[in-house]
Amino acid sequence: MNSTWGKHIVYSLFGESHGPMIGITIHHLPAGIPLDFQAIKKEMDRRRPGSSPHTTPRKEADDFNIISGFFEGKTTGAPLTALIENTSRRSEDYDVLKDVMRPSHADYGAHVKYLGYNDHRGGGHFSGRLTAPVVFAGAIARQLLGLKGIRIEGEITSVAQQSLEGFTPQEDMKRAVKKAMAENDSLGGSLQIRGTGIPAGVGEPFFNSVESQLSHLFFAIPAVKSVSFGLGEGFASKKGSEVRDEMFFEKEGVVIPENFNGGVIGGITNGMPVVANLVIKPTSSIKQPQNTINVATRENTTLIVEGRHDPCIVLRALPVAEAMMAMGILELYMDYDYSGRWQE
Amino acid sequence: MNSTWGKHIVYSLFGESHGPMIGITIHHLPAGIPLDFQAIKKEMDRRRPGSSPHTTPRKEADDFNIISGFFEGKTTGAPLTALIENTSRRSEDYDVLKDVMRPSHADYGAHVKYLGYNDHRGGGHFSGRLTAPVVFAGAIARQLLGLKGIRIEGEITSVAQQSLEGFTPQEDMKRAVKKAMAENDSLGGSLQIRGTGIPAGVGEPFFNSVESQLSHLFFAIPAVKSVSFGLGEGFASKKGSEVRDEMFFEKEGVVIPENFNGGVIGGITNGMPVVANLVIKPTSSIKQPQNTINVATRENTTLIVEGRHDPCIVLRALPVAEAMMAMGILELYMDYDYSGRWQE
Amino acid sequence: MNSTWGKHIVYSLFGESHGPMIGITIHHLPAGIPLDFQAIKKEMDRRRPGSSPHTTPRKEADDFNIISGFFEGKTTGAPLTALIENTSRRSEDYDVLKDVMRPSHADYGAHVKYLGYNDHRGGGHFSGRLTAPVVFAGAIARQLLGLKGIRIEGEITSVAQQSLEGFTPQEDMKRAVKKAMAENDSLGGSLQIRGTGIPAGVGEPFFNSVESQLSHLFFAIPAVKSVSFGLGEGFASKKGSEVRDEMFFEKEGVVIPENFNGGVIGGITNGMPVVANLVIKPTSSIKQPQNTINVATRENTTLIVEGRHDPCIVLRALPVAEAMMAMGILELYMDYDYSGRWQE
Amino acid sequence: MNSTWGKHIVYSLFGESHGPMIGITIHHLPAGIPLDFQAIKKEMDRRRPGSSPHTTPRKEADDFNIISGFFEGKTTGAPLTALIENTSRRSEDYDVLKDVMRPSHADYGAHVKYLGYNDHRGGGHFSGRLTAPVVFAGAIARQLLGLKGIRIEGEITSVAQQSLEGFTPQEDMKRAVKKAMAENDSLGGSLQIRGTGIPAGVGEPFFNSVESQLSHLFFAIPAVKSVSFGLGEGFASKKGSEVRDEMFFEKEGVVIPENFNGGVIGGITNGMPVVANLVIKPTSSIKQPQNTINVATRENTTLIVEGRHDPCIVLRALPVAEAMMAMGILELYMDYDYSGRWQE
Repeated sequence: MNSTWGKHIVYSLFGESHGPMIGITIHHLPAGIPLDFQAIKKEMDRRRPGSSPHTTPRKEADDFNIISGFFEGKTTGAPLTALIENTSRRSEDYDVLKDVMRPSHADYGAHVKYLGYNDHRGGGHFSGRLTAPVVFAGAIARQLLGLKGIRIEGEITSVAQQSLEGFTPQEDMKRAVKKAMAENDSLGGSLQIRGTGIPAGVGEPFFNSVESQLSHLFFAIPAVKSVSFGLGEGFASKKGSEVRDEMFFEKEGVVIPENFNGGVIGGITNGMPVVANLVIKPTSSIKQPQNTINVATRENTTLIVEGRHDPCIVLRALPVAEAMMAMGILELYMDYDYSGRWQE
Repeated sequence: MNSTWGKHIVYSLFGESHGPMIGITIHHLPAGIPLDFQAIKKEMDRRRPGSSPHTTPRKEADDFNIISGFFEGKTTGAPLTALIENTSRRSEDYDVLKDVMRPSHADYGAHVKYLGYNDHRGGGHFSGRLTAPVVFAGAIARQLLGLKGIRIEGEITSVAQQSLEGFTPQEDMKRAVKKAMAENDSLGGSLQIRGTGIPAGVGEPFFNSVESQLSHLFFAIPAVKSVSFGLGEGFASKKGSEVRDEMFFEKEGVVIPENFNGGVIGGITNGMPVVANLVIKPTSSIKQPQNTINVATRENTTLIVEGRHDPCIVLRALPVAEAMMAMGILELYMDYDYSGRWQE
Repeated sequence: MNSTWGKHIVYSLFGESHGPMIGITIHHLPAGIPLDFQAIKKEMDRRRPGSSPHTTPRKEADDFNIISGFFEGKTTGAPLTALIENTSRRSEDYDVLKDVMRPSHADYGAHVKYLGYNDHRGGGHFSGRLTAPVVFAGAIARQLLGLKGIRIEGEITSVAQQSLEGFTPQEDMKRAVKKAMAENDSLGGSLQIRGTGIPAGVGEPFFNSVESQLSHLFFAIPAVKSVSFGLGEGFASKKGSEVRDEMFFEKEGVVIPENFNGGVIGGITNGMPVVANLVIKPTSSIKQPQNTINVATRENTTLIVEGRHDPCIVLRALPVAEAMMAMGILELYMDYDYSGRWQE
Repeated sequence: MNSTWGKHIVYSLFGESHGPMIGITIHHLPAGIPLDFQAIKKEMDRRRPGSSPHTTPRKEADDFNIISGFFEGKTTGAPLTALIENTSRRSEDYDVLKDVMRPSHADYGAHVKYLGYNDHRGGGHFSGRLTAPVVFAGAIARQLLGLKGIRIEGEITSVAQQSLEGFTPQEDMKRAVKKAMAENDSLGGSLQIRGTGIPAGVGEPFFNSVESQLSHLFFAIPAVKSVSFGLGEGFASKKGSEVRDEMFFEKEGVVIPENFNGGVIGGITNGMPVVANLVIKPTSSIKQPQNTINVATRENTTLIVEGRHDPCIVLRALPVAEAMMAMGILELYMDYDYSGRWQE
């Protein structure tokens, strides 16, 4: 697995669910940036399991330990490496899963690709646990973006929409999740992530479009199955005359009031908020019998996935999605920042 | 603009809508591959404007001229470069557009980023015209995949769905497009692209997930605003128990009959068809007055975009999306191909 | 073959010695840069065969045709592609070389790697002819560097040193080359390339050191067999006390008078001129019988390489080496330029 | 700093001389490879300070701790991360060096680039200490190469050549180093690194030539100032007729007895041993007064670099250079391995 990403800032993700530590190295950060540890911790707490009654009871501290690139309160310019210990490892839970493939999981594809040598415990490097260092990296990206006036924020836009009437996120979500938990089931949902303060001109046509870069990162989140921008799939049923992003000079500059395109047209930003919509599938690990295969005996079998699992990871996916957007916008901004200044 | 993509095979796209030529260089192709020129031409004809009464009347030959990397009927291993002439350039159509920004186009973002030096005629390098060399490259990727038993195919799944009852693609689409043309309007729609014959184990978790790589390429297509896999946005309203991808050993091997996940779980293929869904927004160039800005005078103004434009590019986007999928699957397959064979 | 290089500016080289055209695409150039065509032509003339009595009589015009990325006298920000026609192709000269490998040439390695499908005529993409688009790209890199006060210059430091007494480049070189030509032999030599005006702080330790990046490019020149910086191989026989680069504050700033390290220490510039030394091996194509192999018959044989060949390419390698240094310093400078300005 | 390298296998280096740990992550290793820990330790011991009376008395254990990518004795395919503790940190030695720049060191360039925020203690990420994880990575690369029959080996070819008569490495070197130590001085030298068992056809012309890739890595070693291949700088004074690499079919296959080109011609291997020559400059830290600058007071000053330093790092550079060659050949081999097998 090549778990690196980025051209300007390069992220190198490592660790496995049941190894001693996981972590991330962030290469090419500017020197002299003070890091707000409280803000980083706050982001990581949002993702942490056990942080709310609606998420998995598996508790992990997620304390990070920076071992490189940070000196006397500021970045040094050297690669910044953070380590996070895996404090809650119960490998025995996973013994049965060495040969029996969990349905809707990466187990089977990984088994074939890595010839059975991948660490099957908790999914190994495929584990959602690896999103902890991603949130760490995103928190740092956010701080860099903040120095340029760019903010990333997100919200849950739906949870198991079909079963709720008059959806009001917090209360209805709690109720729905509670019900799913009682039924040994899980729920899908959707998120919206927005970037504001991004100037016009960020991104490029074709392979380096804003949508290309951001979707690349969003789909790196294990449970994301759909990514759209602005009106998204709504465009499929529209006429051009219904979705025109008309432009006006106002006192504050150029304004595009409707923003159907979610701040990106032709791969490049237009100064409006960048709006991305993500769909999170229901957790695959449910305590119900499922048909599956045993790759050792090559027989069909039935599996109930035991262990501590979230009935709905939409809430915990939110800070991860925000982190990915921060990393993506930072990369795009750095490219933009350079391109126009050569003749200054 | 950096219009390169890929690690194993590197694609380098060049040209502008109203320059003399556009083209693409494909680096790192294996040597000795015979190219089926008829198949390439057929793909390019599917994308070509004027190839159907429902597309733009602007006619272009799209004949390609290979100047490097091909000798005596086979690839040489050297970079393969194809040139396509721009035979139908009427620059005068675009004079008004130097300062007046077309709404819902990249014009404004590009103007800001490139300080006004970008070639505004026909969108320059932002033009949909640049998808011609992409289809050329995709046709070659398809031929390489074909040697491994992998096929890429696609279809239109909707056009302006809201205005049609009992949607039956061909007839209804023709009718809807005709009506939009008469109304100086345009229509959105959606596509499904499928890859079959892809073995289990292609792709990786996180940054090199199948969905990350494919969405990166799909969103490089100018009008794509949503990309999803398998059940896609449908997952948002589902319970885990409703969308489980149960697995069985059958005579033909491992089978996952439902394939809710569209052949990809945890970023890695499971041997089932890879299914991607794309939403194409309605063409932005419509012959109706739209509010916009003049960046030279810094005043608000009104614009009717004249010229030869498609009322619905869903049909022409189909071969482009298939080409992108072929390029993406080839890249992913090459990575997979290497990873398991070291000890052989 | 993957003939791309670069992260900020990406160069994509294409073409083969005996195809219709060769060329290069330069991705990610800033927009609005005026190009000095006379300066580009001057550089290309320095490399062109037949430009001096001491080089190959094969004459090629080397006129370049820019088909993308340039509009109304300035770069547009789109990929800049230049094509150069191959006007002097006599393929029949090379028929014998399909199976008989030229000693000291890439023929055999290429034959094995590309399974015999590589275009053997004139070396195909391995040909020194491909350095023409490199010089084109270098000339553009020089113009960008010039806007920042950085200059690249070079000189021949030796030709066949051992056979000359009191070496004075111009006259002695002419005499030596004339003699070698008469003897159907060829001569090696050495170059020094210098970059001045480069600020302190360009480059990085380890994999992105100035020496790493520049040597990578210098060794991309077909005949280069040694690259060193500053005192270079002279360091092997020195004590630390003999080669210390002491530093002083002078009126003009920090000065390091000796500059033993050639402007780079620990991978990073110190503000002094960057000094690189290159060794060019004698041309391999000489009109003398050589022992070699026939890969078709798998027999030993003898070959006299006919055709129009340079007795000494040191002179023509000089502008190529300067071009490579310009490309390398531009890449390094762009990285530097970004790194320090985040908090401005 | 971006301390990543590689396309197939990606190396991500991190840590600073006086932080708690340094390390490396190796991405994209094949799964199922058993690692020979004894062999890794042996390589690391060769580089370790204090391992011989001729090197620095600073003792460090260099024990590595693999925290990712390794399970039940074999690689898992996940990123492989090794941590090495910095057990011997005496930061107080370096207090004076915050503002006073060590001559012939990266201090000044780093100070300018990183605005004074770089960790100055022991050079931070610029430290030779960072070569420990490089040797770790190289040891793993060697094991992968070994499975393909490729061996990397090296030797010291000179130390302070000028002061020795009848140079016989071991004894004379000891004597010379002892003398330099007594004189508070240091010595340069040279190495030869060879790769055997490499098939013909590895590498490419131009930017991915074998020499480009290997020199890129060799020059990433802090004290290397010259890299050449085969006859190297000797080519400068030769005629073509004197250095022809004639080829013969022998019983064991194609043979090129002279191998003047060090196994690489036109950027591509010819099946002969790949031979690289490196020059190592004398250590810059000597206990003699040197003129330098104080960047805080902006005054000229004098510095004697105290602390524990090697009089001659040629011996310790040898395993580092071998490691770099192993990493480079592995990268090149992986590219080669793929290119010819598409049609199988």
